[in-house]
Amino acid sequence: MKKPVILINFKAYDTSFGKKGVEIAKQIEKISMEYSTEIIISVPPTEIYRIASEVSLPVFAEHVDSNSLGAYTGSVTPEMVKEAGGKGTLLNHSERRIRIDEIAEAINRSRKLDLDSVVCVDRNELVRAIGTLKPTSILIEPPELIGSGISVSKARPEVITEAVEQIKEFPEVMLIAGAGITSGEDVATAIKLGASGIGVASAVMKAKDPMRVVEEFVRSAKSV
Amino acid sequence: MKKPVILINFKAYDTSFGKKGVEIAKQIEKISMEYSTEIIISVPPTEIYRIASEVSLPVFAEHVDSNSLGAYTGSVTPEMVKEAGGKGTLLNHSERRIRIDEIAEAINRSRKLDLDSVVCVDRNELVRAIGTLKPTSILIEPPELIGSGISVSKARPEVITEAVEQIKEFPEVMLIAGAGITSGEDVATAIKLGASGIGVASAVMKAKDPMRVVEEFVRSAKSV
Amino acid sequence: MKKPVILINFKAYDTSFGKKGVEIAKQIEKISMEYSTEIIISVPPTEIYRIASEVSLPVFAEHVDSNSLGAYTGSVTPEMVKEAGGKGTLLNHSERRIRIDEIAEAINRSRKLDLDSVVCVDRNELVRAIGTLKPTSILIEPPELIGSGISVSKARPEVITEAVEQIKEFPEVMLIAGAGITSGEDVATAIKLGASGIGVASAVMKAKDPMRVVEEFVRSAKSV
Amino acid sequence: MKKPVILINFKAYDTSFGKKGVEIAKQIEKISMEYSTEIIISVPPTEIYRIASEVSLPVFAEHVDSNSLGAYTGSVTPEMVKEAGGKGTLLNHSERRIRIDEIAEAINRSRKLDLDSVVCVDRNELVRAIGTLKPTSILIEPPELIGSGISVSKARPEVITEAVEQIKEFPEVMLIAGAGITSGEDVATAIKLGASGIGVASAVMKAKDPMRVVEEFVRSAKSV
Repeated sequence: MKKPVILINFKAYDTSFGKKGVEIAKQIEKISMEYSTEIIISVPPTEIYRIASEVSLPVFAEHVDSNSLGAYTGSVTPEMVKEAGGKGTLLNHSERRIRIDEIAEAINRSRKLDLDSVVCVDRNELVRAIGTLKPTSILIEPPELIGSGISVSKARPEVITEAVEQIKEFPEVMLIAGAGITSGEDVATAIKLGASGIGVASAVMKAKDPMRVVEEFVRSAKSV
Repeated sequence: MKKPVILINFKAYDTSFGKKGVEIAKQIEKISMEYSTEIIISVPPTEIYRIASEVSLPVFAEHVDSNSLGAYTGSVTPEMVKEAGGKGTLLNHSERRIRIDEIAEAINRSRKLDLDSVVCVDRNELVRAIGTLKPTSILIEPPELIGSGISVSKARPEVITEAVEQIKEFPEVMLIAGAGITSGEDVATAIKLGASGIGVASAVMKAKDPMRVVEEFVRSAKSV
Repeated sequence: MKKPVILINFKAYDTSFGKKGVEIAKQIEKISMEYSTEIIISVPPTEIYRIASEVSLPVFAEHVDSNSLGAYTGSVTPEMVKEAGGKGTLLNHSERRIRIDEIAEAINRSRKLDLDSVVCVDRNELVRAIGTLKPTSILIEPPELIGSGISVSKARPEVITEAVEQIKEFPEVMLIAGAGITSGEDVATAIKLGASGIGVASAVMKAKDPMRVVEEFVRSAKSV
Repeated sequence: MKKPVILINFKAYDTSFGKKGVEIAKQIEKISMEYSTEIIISVPPTEIYRIASEVSLPVFAEHVDSNSLGAYTGSVTPEMVKEAGGKGTLLNHSERRIRIDEIAEAINRSRKLDLDSVVCVDRNELVRAIGTLKPTSILIEPPELIGSGISVSKARPEVITEAVEQIKEFPEVMLIAGAGITSGEDVATAIKLGASGIGVASAVMKAKDPMRVVEEFVRSAKSV
């Protein structure tokens, strides 16, 4: 993962999968190339292979299960993500919380496969706890701001500055900020506050013109 | 789903995904064509698109989440399965139990999309309960026999005969038997006892020569 | 359980436990005796023994786990509820959904111990499914009305009438209606529509004068 | 919690609740007094009030939910445990794993109520992670040894010594060792290795003569 990190979580919108998913991914790829800026997209498990086959962006899973390979029905393992062309995974998103032992196991398994892991936390109290497990990144998102249109950068900048301070104990772990980010200014502010990048979902996936939004984000991120 | 149903659950073995997964699927397809017998395979979510693009077999999901489309991270919805080329889904496998309201919701959503739904139950007591929800099929599997190599046909034939009796109340729902099925004789016995087909996983996925096993199953199924 | 059923779910309000919990239970007992009408209360697991020791009302658990006795940490089993003086249990409340196999197991274990089981469902589609498992009662509660102050009796009477129709297939199972019930009129309407009684929580537990509310409910229930 | 910590987890054995539960608690109390050594017992939620009313031992919950007070059905909150006479709680036992945000919330809520919190972890990797959340104690238990009769002290002493090293970063947090502890020697070894005490369940609860076992443990703990 390269700074500034721009991570777009596709979630499960009707534009997140199938042809529409591929289409948005291609548009994002275009901007990524135009601005020579890496943009990470996390997509539903059904879409990893398809999207990773069609675009050069790093494609992440939105979640992986921590069970080993074997007699498990319905699970998505790091090995499957890797084999499908994925480069990493989100873990513990507020819409998909998992247990601490599962987080540890999924980080370790991902690391062995050279997959990045981005662990979401909802409060500063958990930054150190997750930091000890050495994921690639921690994404801090106050859940009350997710999808709200009120950005963490503006509404709760202290969440970012405190997390940036906390992450210094773990120099190999990056700190990303998310929740309610909708404008280029939100992105720039987060980075100025010390974050290595931002995570976003609805502002892009629900936009009439996702391209315009992503472009604004990338420009702002580069301008800092 | 056509009688006799032969459903092979790929689970999460190291042969269940990536190139190996595609390879086994192609071998199964070959036998399916040779014997003009439909064989259903259920595969990990990451593999649905890839395998469905390469083989003509009906590809099922191993599980679907019942959440609607929207701000959900890490979920696999019926819409995604459909869009990826899937034809149906397993639900409530003993390795992925879900709640009754989730089962009902997933069946209804699948039905609207013309996806088949196969709901697993672990005991006769639940056949009627699930029958009232009108899935395409119910797969009865005593969990203690799953992966045991001791087949339900031999060890507990009364489970099948009782389920066959119970399912008559729901003429549109098929009854499939599973757990421990390893030989052609197990398949034939299940069908003679009144099951519309069988479900199998380890006997195929862990076989040295999966083809031989599948071929034996298909022959036996057709011989009844 | 005797008709008309009046079931008050204590939930986890600050008045639901400790001295306050006992106090409310005693007030409810007073009305129960005054009107010679059975009133069932379901209380947190920590309160069953204490409240059952102090009042003559049937005390229910709000939930029981379905694991057997043994090496299980943190569980509440039917045996513990019985031993603590409980007479039954709620199951599958919308705030504590469980799986279909857990519901079946908990009903069976409760039945063996002569404990009543009241299984909550959120829609008519599940009435028959749960009916096949033969709990003592089914409590139908459209979740969007729970705690809303808008009663199922008024807002969605067809939910009750349809459930009453469906339950006839299971003559030994009672049908109770709940969600948003706040007035005596709501109670009377539910019973007139064919319900064997009502379930209520916030209207009593959050009332300034719980006694007045319970008294109104009992009077209305008896008046039908 | 005082050193040496001796924590007996009652779990859900048939001797863990009702009259038998009280009886065992009283026998443990006797030894506790005889040897002037604090012994903590964690008991099912239904038993906290009853046992805490009858014995002077510190009674802990086996688990608490992290939801706040309010419209929650079936939950056990720290407030309820406190009100019932409890002095603390186990959290995240391998038989009752919870999420990291739930662990954090439960620790904080317990601390505000002056309840002790003992968080179980299954591997050294999680000691620092949980340490950052400042529970009263961390109980490390390799799950493959739980109930095995093969003690962590003998089979995997390095688990204890490493954890003792790790916990030094958090001087206010105690480290307790558990899993498979059956003899006084196991207890003494754990304490010699640097643990502040031990956790035990089956060796006491399934013993023919629990008293003899507890007495041996206490003697050994005091002898170090």
